[in-house]
Amino acid sequence: MKILDTRICEFDKEFAKILERGKMDMGEVSSIVQGILEEIKNEGFGALQRHIARFDKWEAKSLQDLQISQTQCAKAYNDLPKDLKNALHLAYDRIYAFHQKQKQQTWIDCEPNGTMLGSKLTPMERAGLYIPGGKAAYPSSVLMNAIPAIVAGVKEIVLCSPAPYNELNPLLLAALHLCNITESYKVGGASAIGLMAYGIDGVKKADVITGPGNIFVACAKKLVFGEVNIDMVAGPSEIAIIADKSANPQYVAYDLLSQAEHDEMASSILISDDMGLIEKVQAQIDEILPTMPRYKIAKKSIENRSVLIHTRDINESIEIANALAAEHLEILTKAPFEVLPFIKHAGAIFLGEYSSEPIGDYLAGPNHTLPTGGSARFFSPLSVEHFMKRSSIISFSRNALKQMGESCAMLAECESLHAHAQAVLKRLDSIKE
Amino acid sequence: MKILDTRICEFDKEFAKILERGKMDMGEVSSIVQGILEEIKNEGFGALQRHIARFDKWEAKSLQDLQISQTQCAKAYNDLPKDLKNALHLAYDRIYAFHQKQKQQTWIDCEPNGTMLGSKLTPMERAGLYIPGGKAAYPSSVLMNAIPAIVAGVKEIVLCSPAPYNELNPLLLAALHLCNITESYKVGGASAIGLMAYGIDGVKKADVITGPGNIFVACAKKLVFGEVNIDMVAGPSEIAIIADKSANPQYVAYDLLSQAEHDEMASSILISDDMGLIEKVQAQIDEILPTMPRYKIAKKSIENRSVLIHTRDINESIEIANALAAEHLEILTKAPFEVLPFIKHAGAIFLGEYSSEPIGDYLAGPNHTLPTGGSARFFSPLSVEHFMKRSSIISFSRNALKQMGESCAMLAECESLHAHAQAVLKRLDSIKE
Repeated sequence: MKILDTRICEFDKEFAKILERGKMDMGEVSSIVQGILEEIKNEGFGALQRHIARFDKWEAKSLQDLQISQTQCAKAYNDLPKDLKNALHLAYDRIYAFHQKQKQQTWIDCEPNGTMLGSKLTPMERAGLYIPGGKAAYPSSVLMNAIPAIVAGVKEIVLCSPAPYNELNPLLLAALHLCNITESYKVGGASAIGLMAYGIDGVKKADVITGPGNIFVACAKKLVFGEVNIDMVAGPSEIAIIADKSANPQYVAYDLLSQAEHDEMASSILISDDMGLIEKVQAQIDEILPTMPRYKIAKKSIENRSVLIHTRDINESIEIANALAAEHLEILTKAPFEVLPFIKHAGAIFLGEYSSEPIGDYLAGPNHTLPTGGSARFFSPLSVEHFMKRSSIISFSRNALKQMGESCAMLAECESLHAHAQAVLKRLDSIKE
Repeated sequence: MKILDTRICEFDKEFAKILERGKMDMGEVSSIVQGILEEIKNEGFGALQRHIARFDKWEAKSLQDLQISQTQCAKAYNDLPKDLKNALHLAYDRIYAFHQKQKQQTWIDCEPNGTMLGSKLTPMERAGLYIPGGKAAYPSSVLMNAIPAIVAGVKEIVLCSPAPYNELNPLLLAALHLCNITESYKVGGASAIGLMAYGIDGVKKADVITGPGNIFVACAKKLVFGEVNIDMVAGPSEIAIIADKSANPQYVAYDLLSQAEHDEMASSILISDDMGLIEKVQAQIDEILPTMPRYKIAKKSIENRSVLIHTRDINESIEIANALAAEHLEILTKAPFEVLPFIKHAGAIFLGEYSSEPIGDYLAGPNHTLPTGGSARFFSPLSVEHFMKRSSIISFSRNALKQMGESCAMLAECESLHAHAQAVLKRLDSIKE
């Protein structure tokens, strides 16, 4: 694993490359995805059928064939070993409790002159959740996407997940049952995004589409943005760890490798002012890596997309972490809460040695759908907010209009909007009469 | 102005056309805009210079030439007539007060087992505001875009607005001074979005870009989404009015015409269960329209994009309004607050006869940057939230790990993520030791 040192003059150049890690070249993908979306829009089910035969290798004869059966989900849930069922419930309850705390309420503020202003919160009517499949299945993503929608009060939830060879992970089915998702389709990739964004005969279009996915899914989400809302455009997973000499090198190594096993394109970055720690982590990684079941994936990620950064001090470590704006940021220092106020950009911040990143993936409570590639500078974790929208409330009183009507008309005239001014002045006339 | 009646069988077909009003065909625009963005990205100032010569008809010799001078802004502010200066301050203060109420705080919740979970709110570092110019200048948009950024605590605000023939509206300059915007460029259209999204030599890239604009601006914002965050993709302005027989036809007519004077593509839609009112509004519009300084624009909007809808009763009026999901919705009924709970989709809701839509454009307080074309189903008004982002906080305690570590590892194993499971289990081992 490569070591970079901030004291060395090539550092800036090398670090600049890491900062570019999030750049997704959608150039060629974009036209393929645009084509897939057009086919879904124009042909509906026929296009879905073709894409499923091609990518997932099975034949869907009707829209009903695409539906995941609720009986199958209930069976998968009932068949779960007791421990696993408890684990799933624990995760559900903790995620639910956390997201409930996010939920905002409609508010109205009254002014002494009788005016009332406010903000009305309404759940989206229909949410589309995308859950990746293929290489691996992610039942945890069902919980992480469905629960904020449930808490928001979304009435209709539709879910899509690919089923290669028409097979699905039983824990994924059980999670669908637990979340009471009654409308789900075995459709993956850009086709699934098209299905949810445009609708087809028999399937209504969604108002918002959320969830992770590969570059085809990310590109499709970006292309349908505006037609529907989306949570974010996300890329490969990543972790940054700020650690000092108090950190346990084995913990650090496993946390770095947890990201690396996700994806060859994943990035794992240690930032430490202690060269001793860096060397120990390096040794741990060399030891653990060959024993990993997902060795091949992790090795590529560690070799090509990961780095150990040696800094001058903790302040510089923080600076580097802010520049990275990583999806996951662990703070493994003697007093992690003292670092927290200085963290400006990160999807999720994990404090202290027991807050291993996988805890956040499954059951801490906060969402694991997080901004990647530096976009934590401006995107937020998936939340209840993504499934609600606001409408402003304006009830201007007679008195307020009397006080402020002329100022308003004056401003409208300055923008040459005469009818705007008149709309207000005609009302003023009748008040004065 | 066309009248539609919900009782007539062609209604659904005619109404379906109105529901499609928001469809923006970005097809051909998209490749032009993509080209402009690429030029800015690759050539920087040289491309800006060329675009300004072509679209705004003046020659910018250096980056400094593009900057709006602060002295010029201060002068414009000082030269304002007293009444107008007061009006601008009144608007500023009311908009500021409303947006302050939106501001969310960082929170942390403590569990009895020592775990702490929360959400950290951080302002975006750099916000880019786009203010249209050209046909008309909108100083009010400076306030509406800058104030939420200021309230959020954004440190760097950059603003772009086109200056045809190198001239700017004095009230716009005064608004820049009032908002203390110290970095602004005379650049418009897709070039401005490119400048703020990618940055050029001497101008840093922004984290979020907000503000209204024509289809080129909307398309550019959509294309740079992901590279930066944006507020929304918006189209022409529009109003829907739910009115019963208690409504004043003159007020209704002026409020409809206020939208119509914005843009030939603007839509003004009256929804009423009272045919008497509809006829009176029709007569008022026929009378007022020819007297309007912006007669040509308003006439096209009224003839081609506007309609009077006659409904069976107030419930049907509400249903139609929800289906429209209009940018502005006025409720001009006897008891408007009784209607409010049933409004699901609208950018801003104006209640009662004194809440004329232009009041909301200038000084009521809520933002006038609103979702259009039906996108109020899923987009929200511009707000302080658009200039902040969240990071999740996870501090899992030793006890919590002891209680839940095994469940977490079990879920990780089900997703074949072995290192995830090990990261947790190795910690459990040391706790048990």
